[in-house]
Amino acid sequence: MLLIRDINRLKKMIKRAKNKEKKIGLVPTMGFLHEGHLSLVRLALRKSDVLVVSIFVNPMQFAPSEDFRQYPRDLNRDMRQLRDEGVDLIFYPDTKRMYPPDYATAIEVQGLDQVLCGMSRPHHFRGVTAVVLKLFNIVNPDIAVFGKKDYQQAVIIKRMVKDLNLGVEIVLGKIIREKDGLALSSRNIYLSQKQRIDAVVLYESLQWIQRAFKNGLRDRKKALTKIRGMIRHRGGQIDYVEAVNKETLKPVRRLNKGTLIALAVNFGRTRLIDNTILR
Amino acid sequence: MLLIRDINRLKKMIKRAKNKEKKIGLVPTMGFLHEGHLSLVRLALRKSDVLVVSIFVNPMQFAPSEDFRQYPRDLNRDMRQLRDEGVDLIFYPDTKRMYPPDYATAIEVQGLDQVLCGMSRPHHFRGVTAVVLKLFNIVNPDIAVFGKKDYQQAVIIKRMVKDLNLGVEIVLGKIIREKDGLALSSRNIYLSQKQRIDAVVLYESLQWIQRAFKNGLRDRKKALTKIRGMIRHRGGQIDYVEAVNKETLKPVRRLNKGTLIALAVNFGRTRLIDNTILR
Repeated sequence: MLLIRDINRLKKMIKRAKNKEKKIGLVPTMGFLHEGHLSLVRLALRKSDVLVVSIFVNPMQFAPSEDFRQYPRDLNRDMRQLRDEGVDLIFYPDTKRMYPPDYATAIEVQGLDQVLCGMSRPHHFRGVTAVVLKLFNIVNPDIAVFGKKDYQQAVIIKRMVKDLNLGVEIVLGKIIREKDGLALSSRNIYLSQKQRIDAVVLYESLQWIQRAFKNGLRDRKKALTKIRGMIRHRGGQIDYVEAVNKETLKPVRRLNKGTLIALAVNFGRTRLIDNTILR
Repeated sequence: MLLIRDINRLKKMIKRAKNKEKKIGLVPTMGFLHEGHLSLVRLALRKSDVLVVSIFVNPMQFAPSEDFRQYPRDLNRDMRQLRDEGVDLIFYPDTKRMYPPDYATAIEVQGLDQVLCGMSRPHHFRGVTAVVLKLFNIVNPDIAVFGKKDYQQAVIIKRMVKDLNLGVEIVLGKIIREKDGLALSSRNIYLSQKQRIDAVVLYESLQWIQRAFKNGLRDRKKALTKIRGMIRHRGGQIDYVEAVNKETLKPVRRLNKGTLIALAVNFGRTRLIDNTILR
């Protein structure tokens, strides 16, 4: 397993692999890997000949008020985990090489990046699209794997890939959860014991709406009001609870099969997201 | 010579050429080719094994009030000229395939795209960067050739290429002029005979500042005031006349070797640009 920091060195290695007709895979991460990331890695390993896992806490997707500095990091543990999975290449770029002082380019996916998480984090997705586009240009992958927990991110990246004629297949891996249902997140370690228990309400509320939808509930307002109540009752401060079209991310009038239910909730200073697609 | 409309067909052809280690060149144009374009084509032919010349009047870089519909087009003449130059491939994409109804992605090169031409054409460069990035992703060129007449465009594209880690070498071709000095432009055909004669003042004013600089003029205000006067005297309505750093595009305090003198002037409804670098 190789840990590569230099962008041009990685580009050259990829070019050699491409010349041998190897299929290149990419899993972009911010490190501090958990089973959610590892499930994406396993999916990518099955679908590629040479897999690059990038570890880069991308400053551009954090607002000044957010947790960029505090974001958890543990490179040695990440490396051990990736070695155990059989990963070939880790790309661990230097922040100053990724964003030199004169860096000036932003990518906007208009209409998709100002809703849901884009409301409370107005510059977040510009940072995501910029770093993902840079990684695509550096790694030149045939496939790239993202998680469904960041569903809006996946929708935005897919649209960017289509709009910009990038030849990357975007593969989505499912949400991995703790035994009690809490979606895995690097930020879960911020939670107090009480908050950790309360946060299960996110999963419970998504389970509830799936059942209610199965039993005939179609009224958007009724459904969302009920979920908001469930979450507030457990001490969550709601950023948003929404029912949207899973491609356009526009609010739906009535719940339908395929409607995306997405939520973002703060427990104390920790912001958690989760989602489900009605089936 | 092949005229290709289908994006995927072109992508496949390029992939085959790349597998044979051919060096791919790209000259993006909006058609209605003149000697300025052809000089870029000749430059690109010398620097590549397989050359793609794209012809696409990009709606995204025109404001609703601008001349997208009236922009001159003559595909047959363009094809004849390119065949005579020995061009292999013309890419002539369909507007609806380039920008489907759900197209949503914009690229901003902040700080560079809101000055000079970006002042009076605030969305122009977003359209330029989007189409150029799409063309780069479709054609995957090793080199791409642009003209120095659109100097700001070249600066923005170079920055985008660097910021996004695109592996494209940007080559700039010099400004080609009529015998009397007017820079070639597809828009020159809009000029009346009187305007055509008056428009030479753009070149004359740039010639004047080169001479004055050689003779010791360093005062920015004095230089720009003189040029503005020369242009107004010949009936030009000034959009801007500026002296800026040729990389950051920020105004300079004093004229220096390497300072970019750039101007945009309307003669009637026809907007012309020109520039020179002090030497």
